[in-house]
Amino acid sequence: MTVSIQTFELRTKAYCDVINITNQVQNILNNSDIKNGIVNVHVAGSTGAISTVEYEPGLVNHDIKTFLENIIPYDKNYEHHKTWHDYNGAGHLRSFLIKTSQTFPFKSHKLILGTWQQIIFIECDEKGRNRKIYCSIIGE
Amino acid sequence: MTVSIQTFELRTKAYCDVINITNQVQNILNNSDIKNGIVNVHVAGSTGAISTVEYEPGLVNHDIKTFLENIIPYDKNYEHHKTWHDYNGAGHLRSFLIKTSQTFPFKSHKLILGTWQQIIFIECDEKGRNRKIYCSIIGE
Amino acid sequence: MTVSIQTFELRTKAYCDVINITNQVQNILNNSDIKNGIVNVHVAGSTGAISTVEYEPGLVNHDIKTFLENIIPYDKNYEHHKTWHDYNGAGHLRSFLIKTSQTFPFKSHKLILGTWQQIIFIECDEKGRNRKIYCSIIGE
Repeated sequence: MTVSIQTFELRTKAYCDVINITNQVQNILNNSDIKNGIVNVHVAGSTGAISTVEYEPGLVNHDIKTFLENIIPYDKNYEHHKTWHDYNGAGHLRSFLIKTSQTFPFKSHKLILGTWQQIIFIECDEKGRNRKIYCSIIGE
Repeated sequence: MTVSIQTFELRTKAYCDVINITNQVQNILNNSDIKNGIVNVHVAGSTGAISTVEYEPGLVNHDIKTFLENIIPYDKNYEHHKTWHDYNGAGHLRSFLIKTSQTFPFKSHKLILGTWQQIIFIECDEKGRNRKIYCSIIGE
Repeated sequence: MTVSIQTFELRTKAYCDVINITNQVQNILNNSDIKNGIVNVHVAGSTGAISTVEYEPGLVNHDIKTFLENIIPYDKNYEHHKTWHDYNGAGHLRSFLIKTSQTFPFKSHKLILGTWQQIIFIECDEKGRNRKIYCSIIGE
Protein backbone atom coordinates (compact mmCIF):
# COMPACT_ATOMS: atom_id res chain seq x y z
CA MET A 1 0.00 0.00 0.00
CA THR A 2 1.35 3.35 -0.98
CA VAL A 3 0.42 6.92 -1.90
CA SER A 4 1.37 8.91 -5.01
CA ILE A 5 0.46 12.54 -5.77
CA GLN A 6 0.72 13.41 -9.48
CA THR A 7 -0.32 16.53 -11.38
CA PHE A 8 -1.24 17.66 -14.87
CA GLU A 9 -1.98 21.09 -16.30
CA LEU A 10 -4.85 22.58 -18.28
CA ARG A 11 -5.35 25.76 -20.26
CA THR A 12 -8.98 26.79 -19.84
CA LYS A 13 -11.38 29.29 -21.34
CA ALA A 14 -13.49 31.74 -19.32
CA TYR A 15 -17.17 31.40 -18.35
CA CYS A 16 -17.99 27.76 -17.79
CA ASP A 17 -15.51 25.91 -19.99
CA VAL A 18 -16.22 22.20 -19.38
CA ILE A 19 -13.16 20.05 -20.11
CA ASN A 20 -13.01 16.25 -20.29
CA ILE A 21 -10.03 15.20 -18.11
CA THR A 22 -10.74 11.46 -18.01
CA ASN A 23 -7.77 10.60 -20.25
CA GLN A 24 -5.32 12.61 -18.17
CA VAL A 25 -6.45 10.90 -14.95
CA GLN A 26 -6.43 7.47 -16.64
CA ASN A 27 -2.90 8.08 -18.01
CA ILE A 28 -1.64 8.81 -14.51
CA LEU A 29 -3.18 5.53 -13.30
CA ASN A 30 -1.63 3.64 -16.26
CA ASN A 31 1.84 4.86 -15.28
CA SER A 32 1.46 4.21 -11.55
CA ASP A 33 2.74 1.21 -9.57
CA ILE A 34 -0.57 1.21 -7.66
CA LYS A 35 -2.96 -1.32 -9.20
CA ASN A 36 -6.17 -1.00 -7.11
CA GLY A 37 -7.44 1.83 -4.97
CA ILE A 38 -8.92 5.31 -5.10
CA VAL A 39 -7.82 8.53 -6.80
CA ASN A 40 -8.73 11.97 -5.47
CA VAL A 41 -8.97 14.49 -8.34
CA HIS A 42 -8.60 18.02 -7.00
CA VAL A 43 -8.05 21.54 -8.29
CA ALA A 44 -6.12 23.86 -5.98
CA GLY A 45 -8.19 27.01 -6.50
CA SER A 46 -11.46 28.64 -5.55
CA THR A 47 -13.05 29.22 -8.98
CA GLY A 48 -12.73 25.73 -10.52
CA ALA A 49 -14.70 22.54 -9.97
CA ILE A 50 -14.57 18.76 -10.57
CA SER A 51 -17.52 16.48 -11.34
CA THR A 52 -18.61 13.90 -13.95
CA VAL A 53 -20.99 14.06 -16.91
CA GLU A 54 -21.73 12.36 -20.22
CA TYR A 55 -19.40 14.43 -22.36
CA GLU A 56 -21.54 15.29 -25.38
CA PRO A 57 -22.11 18.75 -26.90
CA GLY A 58 -25.71 19.22 -25.74
CA LEU A 59 -24.88 18.86 -22.06
CA VAL A 60 -21.39 20.37 -22.18
CA ASN A 61 -22.00 23.42 -24.38
CA HIS A 62 -25.60 24.18 -23.49
CA ASP A 63 -27.41 22.43 -20.63
CA ILE A 64 -24.73 22.76 -17.93
CA LYS A 65 -24.09 26.41 -18.86
CA THR A 66 -27.81 27.26 -18.88
CA PHE A 67 -28.48 25.50 -15.59
CA LEU A 68 -25.60 27.21 -13.76
CA GLU A 69 -26.42 30.57 -15.33
CA ASN A 70 -30.00 30.25 -14.04
CA ILE A 71 -29.03 29.63 -10.43
CA ILE A 72 -25.72 31.59 -10.30
CA PRO A 73 -25.68 34.23 -13.09
CA TYR A 74 -22.36 35.81 -14.05
CA ASP A 75 -23.78 39.29 -14.59
CA LYS A 76 -24.88 40.20 -11.07
CA ASN A 77 -23.53 42.59 -8.43
CA TYR A 78 -22.09 40.13 -5.93
CA GLU A 79 -20.77 41.51 -2.66
CA HIS A 80 -17.52 39.70 -3.46
CA HIS A 81 -16.87 42.26 -6.19
CA LYS A 82 -16.60 45.03 -3.60
CA THR A 83 -13.87 43.23 -1.68
CA TRP A 84 -11.35 42.96 -4.52
CA HIS A 85 -12.94 44.95 -7.36
CA ASP A 86 -12.87 41.85 -9.51
CA TYR A 87 -15.94 40.29 -11.10
CA ASN A 88 -15.81 36.58 -10.39
CA GLY A 89 -18.37 36.27 -7.58
CA ALA A 90 -20.34 33.80 -9.70
CA GLY A 91 -17.19 31.75 -10.25
CA HIS A 92 -16.58 31.47 -6.51
CA LEU A 93 -20.19 30.46 -5.81
CA ARG A 94 -20.19 27.84 -8.57
CA SER A 95 -16.96 26.35 -7.23
CA PHE A 96 -18.38 26.36 -3.69
CA LEU A 97 -21.48 24.53 -4.96
CA ILE A 98 -19.94 21.91 -7.29
CA LYS A 99 -16.74 21.65 -5.21
CA THR A 100 -13.11 21.37 -6.16
CA SER A 101 -12.62 17.61 -5.85
CA GLN A 102 -14.11 14.17 -6.31
CA THR A 103 -12.73 10.72 -5.44
CA PHE A 104 -13.00 7.70 -7.77
CA PRO A 105 -12.19 3.99 -7.44
CA PHE A 106 -9.95 2.10 -9.88
CA LYS A 107 -9.21 -1.61 -10.42
CA SER A 108 -6.27 -3.07 -12.40
CA HIS A 109 -5.19 0.53 -13.12
CA LYS A 110 -8.58 1.32 -14.75
CA LEU A 111 -11.02 4.00 -13.54
CA ILE A 112 -14.42 2.56 -12.57
CA LEU A 113 -16.86 4.81 -14.43
CA GLY A 114 -20.15 4.32 -16.26
CA THR A 115 -20.05 3.76 -20.03
CA TRP A 116 -21.09 7.36 -20.68
CA GLN A 117 -19.47 8.92 -17.60
CA GLN A 118 -16.43 11.18 -17.94
CA ILE A 119 -14.52 13.19 -15.33
CA ILE A 120 -14.72 16.92 -16.03
CA PHE A 121 -13.06 20.12 -14.92
CA ILE A 122 -15.34 23.17 -14.94
CA GLU A 123 -13.69 26.59 -15.33
CA CYS A 124 -16.03 28.82 -13.32
CA ASP A 125 -13.89 31.97 -13.51
CA GLU A 126 -14.55 34.95 -15.77
CA LYS A 127 -11.01 34.64 -17.17
CA GLY A 128 -9.22 31.78 -18.94
CA ARG A 129 -6.69 30.21 -16.57
CA ASN A 130 -3.76 27.82 -16.33
CA ARG A 131 -4.91 25.10 -13.94
CA LYS A 132 -2.97 22.43 -12.09
CA ILE A 133 -4.99 19.30 -11.28
CA TYR A 134 -3.80 16.99 -8.47
CA CYS A 135 -4.40 13.25 -8.72
CA SER A 136 -3.71 11.61 -5.35
CA ILE A 137 -3.61 7.83 -5.66
CA ILE A 138 -3.98 5.61 -2.60
CA GLY A 139 -3.92 1.84 -2.97
CA GLU A 140 -1.72 -1.18 -3.49
CA MET B 1 -3.18 -1.27 5.55
CA THR B 2 -5.07 -2.61 2.61
CA VAL B 3 -7.70 -1.82 -0.02
CA SER B 4 -10.89 -3.71 -0.83
CA ILE B 5 -13.42 -2.87 -3.57
CA GLN B 6 -16.85 -4.44 -2.99
CA THR B 7 -20.16 -3.97 -4.81
CA PHE B 8 -23.88 -4.34 -4.25
CA GLU B 9 -26.84 -3.94 -6.61
CA LEU B 10 -30.04 -1.91 -6.49
CA ARG B 11 -33.26 -1.96 -8.47
CA THR B 12 -34.46 1.64 -8.70
CA LYS B 13 -37.59 3.47 -9.81
CA ALA B 14 -37.62 6.38 -12.26
CA TYR B 15 -37.79 10.11 -11.48
CA CYS B 16 -35.96 10.80 -8.24
CA ASP B 17 -36.22 7.53 -6.34
CA VAL B 18 -34.29 8.14 -3.09
CA ILE B 19 -33.00 4.86 -1.60
CA ASN B 20 -31.43 4.37 1.83
CA ILE B 21 -28.23 2.36 1.22
CA THR B 22 -26.70 2.76 4.69
CA ASN B 23 -27.29 -0.89 5.63
CA GLN B 24 -25.68 -2.22 2.47
CA VAL B 25 -22.56 -0.08 3.03
CA GLN B 26 -22.46 -1.01 6.74
CA ASN B 27 -22.80 -4.74 5.91
CA ILE B 28 -19.78 -4.53 3.61
CA LEU B 29 -17.78 -2.91 6.43
CA ASN B 30 -18.99 -5.59 8.90
CA ASN B 31 -17.63 -8.34 6.64
CA SER B 32 -14.31 -6.63 5.86
CA ASP B 33 -10.93 -7.29 7.48
CA ILE B 34 -10.33 -3.53 7.52
CA LYS B 35 -11.23 -2.08 10.92
CA ASN B 36 -10.59 1.68 10.58
CA GLY B 37 -10.44 3.89 7.52
CA ILE B 38 -12.54 5.47 4.81
CA VAL B 39 -15.05 4.07 2.33
CA ASN B 40 -15.74 5.68 -1.05
CA VAL B 41 -19.34 5.02 -2.13
CA HIS B 42 -19.66 5.44 -5.90
CA VAL B 43 -22.14 4.72 -8.67
CA ALA B 44 -20.63 4.00 -12.08
CA GLY B 45 -23.08 5.95 -14.22
CA SER B 46 -24.02 9.46 -15.27
CA THR B 47 -27.65 9.68 -14.11
CA GLY B 48 -27.31 8.53 -10.48
CA ALA B 49 -26.03 10.31 -7.37
CA ILE B 50 -24.83 9.66 -3.80
CA SER B 51 -25.37 11.92 -0.78
CA THR B 52 -26.77 11.75 2.77
CA VAL B 53 -30.05 12.82 4.33
CA GLU B 54 -32.31 12.15 7.30
CA TYR B 55 -34.32 9.33 5.74
CA GLU B 56 -37.90 10.26 6.63
CA PRO B 57 -40.91 10.47 4.25
CA GLY B 58 -41.24 14.27 4.21
CA LEU B 59 -37.72 14.88 2.92
CA VAL B 60 -37.43 11.71 0.83
CA ASN B 61 -40.81 11.69 -0.92
CA HIS B 62 -41.50 15.42 -1.11
CA ASP B 63 -38.88 18.02 -0.22
CA ILE B 64 -35.91 16.58 -2.18
CA LYS B 65 -38.12 15.93 -5.22
CA THR B 66 -39.65 19.43 -5.11
CA PHE B 67 -36.30 21.14 -4.65
CA LEU B 68 -34.64 19.30 -7.55
CA GLU B 69 -37.70 19.73 -9.77
CA ASN B 70 -37.58 23.50 -9.13
CA ILE B 71 -33.96 23.91 -10.19
CA ILE B 72 -33.69 21.06 -12.78
CA PRO B 73 -37.19 20.17 -14.07
CA TYR B 74 -37.70 16.87 -15.88
CA ASP B 75 -40.13 18.27 -18.45
CA LYS B 76 -37.90 20.67 -20.36
CA ASN B 77 -36.32 20.60 -23.85
CA TYR B 78 -32.68 20.02 -22.94
CA GLU B 79 -30.13 20.14 -25.74
CA HIS B 80 -29.00 16.71 -24.56
CA HIS B 81 -32.25 15.27 -25.95
CA LYS B 82 -31.23 16.22 -29.48
CA THR B 83 -27.96 14.29 -29.24
CA TRP B 84 -29.47 10.86 -28.50
CA HIS B 85 -33.21 11.43 -28.81
CA ASP B 86 -33.64 10.31 -25.24
CA TYR B 87 -35.23 12.41 -22.52
CA ASN B 88 -32.95 12.26 -19.51
CA GLY B 89 -31.24 15.65 -19.71
CA ALA B 90 -32.52 16.49 -16.22
CA GLY B 91 -31.11 13.20 -14.91
CA HIS B 92 -27.64 14.04 -16.24
CA LEU B 93 -27.73 17.55 -14.77
CA ARG B 94 -28.88 16.31 -11.37
CA SER B 95 -26.10 13.71 -11.30
CA PHE B 96 -23.56 16.36 -12.34
CA LEU B 97 -24.78 18.61 -9.50
CA ILE B 98 -25.11 16.10 -6.62
CA LYS B 99 -22.25 13.91 -7.93
CA THR B 100 -21.82 10.18 -8.15
CA SER B 101 -19.76 9.56 -5.03
CA GLN B 102 -19.08 10.49 -1.43
CA THR B 103 -16.40 9.27 0.99
CA PHE B 104 -17.10 8.41 4.66
CA PRO B 105 -14.92 7.50 7.66
CA PHE B 106 -15.46 4.37 9.77
CA LYS B 107 -14.06 3.19 13.10
CA SER B 108 -14.17 -0.38 14.48
CA HIS B 109 -16.06 -1.39 11.29
CA LYS B 110 -18.79 1.21 12.00
CA LEU B 111 -19.72 4.12 9.72
CA ILE B 112 -19.30 7.51 11.42
CA LEU B 113 -22.62 9.23 10.69
CA GLY B 114 -24.95 11.54 12.60
CA THR B 115 -27.85 9.99 14.52
CA TRP B 116 -30.28 11.01 11.78
CA GLN B 117 -27.91 10.78 8.84
CA GLN B 118 -28.25 8.03 6.25
CA ILE B 119 -26.37 7.39 3.00
CA ILE B 120 -28.67 7.60 -0.01
CA PHE B 121 -28.63 6.74 -3.68
CA ILE B 122 -30.71 9.07 -5.88
CA GLU B 123 -32.03 7.68 -9.17
CA CYS B 124 -32.05 10.76 -11.39
CA ASP B 125 -32.95 8.94 -14.62
CA GLU B 126 -36.38 8.95 -16.27
CA LYS B 127 -36.33 5.12 -16.27
CA GLY B 128 -36.00 2.60 -13.44
CA ARG B 129 -32.54 1.03 -13.54
CA ASN B 130 -30.38 -1.77 -12.18
CA ARG B 131 -27.51 -0.02 -10.41
CA LYS B 132 -24.18 -1.32 -9.18
CA ILE B 133 -22.72 0.60 -6.23
CA TYR B 134 -18.98 0.38 -5.53
CA CYS B 135 -17.71 0.55 -1.95
CA SER B 136 -13.93 1.06 -1.94
CA ILE B 137 -12.51 0.56 1.53
CA ILE B 138 -9.06 1.88 2.45
CA GLY B 139 -7.68 1.41 5.93
CA GLU B 140 -6.10 -1.06 8.30
CA MET C 1 1.09 3.65 5.25
CA THR C 2 -1.36 4.20 8.02
CA VAL C 3 -4.72 5.69 8.95
CA SER C 4 -5.55 8.19 11.70
CA ILE C 5 -8.99 9.56 12.58
CA GLN C 6 -8.87 12.81 14.56
CA THR C 7 -11.62 15.23 15.60
CA PHE C 8 -12.13 18.84 16.58
CA GLU C 9 -15.20 20.71 17.82
CA LEU C 10 -16.98 23.86 16.72
CA ARG C 11 -19.61 26.11 18.26
CA THR C 12 -21.77 27.41 15.42
CA LYS C 13 -24.48 30.02 14.93
CA ALA C 14 -27.84 29.34 13.28
CA TYR C 15 -28.88 30.08 9.67
CA CYS C 16 -25.91 29.66 7.41
CA ASP C 17 -22.94 30.37 9.64
CA VAL C 18 -19.88 29.87 7.41
CA ILE C 19 -16.77 28.98 9.47
CA ASN C 20 -13.18 28.78 8.22
CA ILE C 21 -11.82 25.43 9.51
CA THR C 22 -8.60 25.36 7.45
CA ASN C 23 -6.37 25.98 10.49
CA GLN C 24 -7.97 23.19 12.51
CA VAL C 25 -7.48 20.69 9.68
CA GLN C 26 -3.92 21.93 9.05
CA ASN C 27 -3.08 21.63 12.77
CA ILE C 28 -4.17 17.99 12.77
CA LEU C 29 -1.90 17.33 9.78
CA ASN C 30 1.00 19.15 11.51
CA ASN C 31 0.71 16.84 14.51
CA SER C 32 0.33 13.63 12.51
CA ASP C 33 3.03 11.06 11.68
CA ILE C 34 1.58 10.82 8.17
CA LYS C 35 3.52 13.04 5.78
CA ASN C 36 1.77 12.63 2.42
CA GLY C 37 -1.75 11.50 1.58
CA ILE C 38 -5.37 12.55 1.70
CA VAL C 39 -7.60 13.83 4.49
CA ASN C 40 -11.37 13.31 4.51
CA VAL C 41 -13.09 16.18 6.36
CA HIS C 42 -16.56 15.09 7.50
CA VAL C 43 -19.33 16.28 9.78
CA ALA C 44 -21.41 13.55 11.39
CA GLY C 45 -24.84 15.16 11.05
CA SER C 46 -27.57 15.90 8.53
CA THR C 47 -27.80 19.71 8.73
CA GLY C 48 -24.13 20.67 8.28
CA ALA C 49 -21.91 20.79 5.19
CA ILE C 50 -18.26 20.99 4.12
CA SER C 51 -16.86 22.80 1.07
CA THR C 52 -14.23 25.41 0.17
CA VAL C 53 -14.39 29.11 -0.64
CA GLU C 54 -12.29 32.26 -0.64
CA TYR C 55 -12.97 33.30 2.94
CA GLU C 56 -13.72 37.01 2.60
CA PRO C 57 -16.74 38.91 4.03
CA GLY C 58 -18.56 39.50 0.72
CA LEU C 59 -18.83 35.81 -0.13
CA VAL C 60 -19.11 34.52 3.43
CA ASN C 61 -21.61 36.98 4.91
CA HIS C 62 -23.61 37.83 1.81
CA ASP C 63 -23.23 35.95 -1.47
CA ILE C 64 -23.33 32.37 -0.12
CA LYS C 65 -26.29 33.20 2.16
CA THR C 66 -28.22 34.92 -0.65
CA PHE C 67 -27.56 32.14 -3.14
CA LEU C 68 -28.68 29.37 -0.77
CA GLU C 69 -31.67 31.39 0.42
CA ASN C 70 -32.76 31.81 -3.23
CA ILE C 71 -32.74 28.10 -4.03
CA ILE C 72 -33.56 26.67 -0.56
CA PRO C 73 -35.32 29.34 1.55
CA TYR C 74 -35.56 28.87 5.32
CA ASP C 75 -39.08 30.27 5.63
CA LYS C 76 -41.08 27.67 3.70
CA ASN C 77 -43.48 24.89 4.72
CA TYR C 78 -41.36 21.83 4.06
CA GLU C 79 -43.00 18.42 4.42
CA HIS C 80 -40.14 17.56 6.78
CA HIS C 81 -41.67 19.92 9.35
CA LYS C 82 -44.75 17.70 9.62
CA THR C 83 -42.69 14.63 10.50
CA TRP C 84 -41.01 16.04 13.62
CA HIS C 85 -42.66 19.44 14.12
CA ASP C 86 -39.29 21.07 13.83
CA TYR C 87 -38.42 23.74 11.28
CA ASN C 88 -35.13 22.75 9.71
CA GLY C 89 -36.27 21.37 6.36
CA ALA C 90 -34.10 23.93 4.58
CA GLY C 91 -31.11 22.87 6.69
CA HIS C 92 -31.53 19.25 5.64
CA LEU C 93 -31.87 20.14 1.96
CA ARG C 94 -28.80 22.40 2.03
CA SER C 95 -26.75 19.65 3.69
CA PHE C 96 -28.03 17.11 1.13
CA LEU C 97 -26.98 19.48 -1.69
CA ILE C 98 -23.56 20.67 -0.48
CA LYS C 99 -22.81 17.37 1.31
CA THR C 100 -21.23 16.60 4.64
CA SER C 101 -17.68 15.83 3.51
CA GLN C 102 -14.86 16.62 1.13
CA THR C 103 -11.46 14.96 0.66
CA PHE C 104 -8.21 16.92 0.19
CA PRO C 105 -4.61 15.99 -0.66
CA PHE C 106 -1.61 17.02 1.45
CA LYS C 107 2.15 16.89 0.88
CA SER C 108 4.86 17.23 3.58
CA HIS C 109 2.05 17.71 6.13
CA LYS C 110 0.64 20.69 4.19
CA LEU C 111 -2.85 20.91 2.67
CA ILE C 112 -2.78 21.43 -1.09
CA LEU C 113 -5.16 24.36 -1.60
CA GLY C 114 -5.29 27.41 -3.84
CA THR C 115 -3.88 30.69 -2.53
CA TRP C 116 -7.39 31.99 -1.82
CA GLN C 117 -9.03 28.67 -1.05
CA GLN C 118 -10.11 27.79 2.49
CA ILE C 119 -11.98 24.78 3.88
CA ILE C 120 -15.32 25.78 5.40
CA PHE C 121 -18.02 24.30 7.58
CA ILE C 122 -21.52 25.57 6.82
CA GLU C 123 -24.10 25.45 9.64
CA CYS C 124 -27.33 24.87 7.74
CA ASP C 125 -29.53 24.33 10.81
CA GLU C 126 -31.96 26.88 12.23
CA LYS C 127 -30.26 26.54 15.65
CA GLY C 128 -26.67 27.11 16.74
CA ARG C 129 -25.00 23.76 17.37
CA ASN C 130 -21.96 22.06 18.85
CA ARG C 131 -20.35 20.21 15.95
CA LYS C 132 -17.71 17.50 15.86
CA ILE C 133 -15.64 17.42 12.67
CA TYR C 134 -13.81 14.20 11.72
CA CYS C 135 -10.47 14.39 9.90
CA SER C 136 -9.53 10.95 8.57
CA ILE C 137 -5.95 10.89 7.35
CA ILE C 138 -4.72 8.16 5.01
CA GLY C 139 -1.14 8.16 3.77
CA GLU C 140 2.43 7.40 4.68
